[in-house]
Amino acid sequence: METNLKSLIRDIPDFPKKGITYKDITPLLLDPEAMKTAVDRFIENLPDVKIHKVVGIESRGFFFATLLAEKLNAGFIPVRKPGKLPHHTHSEDYDLEYGTDTLEIHEDAINKGENVLLHDDVLATGGTAAATCKLIERGGGKIVHCNFLVELEFLEGKRKLENYDVSSLIKYS
Amino acid sequence: METNLKSLIRDIPDFPKKGITYKDITPLLLDPEAMKTAVDRFIENLPDVKIHKVVGIESRGFFFATLLAEKLNAGFIPVRKPGKLPHHTHSEDYDLEYGTDTLEIHEDAINKGENVLLHDDVLATGGTAAATCKLIERGGGKIVHCNFLVELEFLEGKRKLENYDVSSLIKYS
Repeated sequence: METNLKSLIRDIPDFPKKGITYKDITPLLLDPEAMKTAVDRFIENLPDVKIHKVVGIESRGFFFATLLAEKLNAGFIPVRKPGKLPHHTHSEDYDLEYGTDTLEIHEDAINKGENVLLHDDVLATGGTAAATCKLIERGGGKIVHCNFLVELEFLEGKRKLENYDVSSLIKYS
Repeated sequence: METNLKSLIRDIPDFPKKGITYKDITPLLLDPEAMKTAVDRFIENLPDVKIHKVVGIESRGFFFATLLAEKLNAGFIPVRKPGKLPHHTHSEDYDLEYGTDTLEIHEDAINKGENVLLHDDVLATGGTAAATCKLIERGGGKIVHCNFLVELEFLEGKRKLENYDVSSLIKYS
């Protein structure tokens, strides 16, 4: 029987602050069968085109992004917080609840016209994913799909990704 | 012919500060054949025992740690900076050049007696790896191997890991 992925997500009340229920994916990461199931389902949901690069967003997006890159025989690109990537970067600011944050990608990570898969662990408000889409496109990439392990549907992050093909494995409405 | 991994490591002078030459592994991550070669070589160097859990150290240790966990049919455990892991944690301080830093592991990540592989991208002074060894042992795990993509031999990090079996794929002496 296929592993029930949702049963391996743990609710943490009042984290990172009061009133927020955090979806902790670490129990799923401890279970090799669940990891396999998740990767298989990510792959099943992809469009039938060659994917050249998989972009993972710091830090929890890295967990599955290298696994997806390996299965797709694609390169892996980390998108990171400012000052972490050592070579020339493109950077994008995005809005947080209070203030702004920034993400960066190496300028030479994507070759013009390459098909790119964007991956992160959680789709919440969509701010980081939308900023990452801009980074990918500034690098000349074509975003063929965006996938997420968990989607918090009530935060309507998909609205910020309406120009893209999006899937997620575990949804909370 | 096997990919020459070292040729895919890029020297970045004066990063993160003047006088330091940073070893940038991102060109290697872009190359799926090199990623495969690296994973195969990591696996070849492991002792012939069942490994139950692979621990990756935030953030660049995550790139290969999930790939190793998948190949070994093992669980994956992230060791992270303070405040990032949402459930009950063990924590360990370790010395930096100036001041100290802290790493955390979920208390329930390791079952007593499990065999654990520790992975990080770079072995430099060994401070983060040694702190992570303590975390693994406090969790009841037995460290059967520690591996690194890159080892900066001149920083003698292996001295801090002298009680453990250690390997690295790319060395700078």
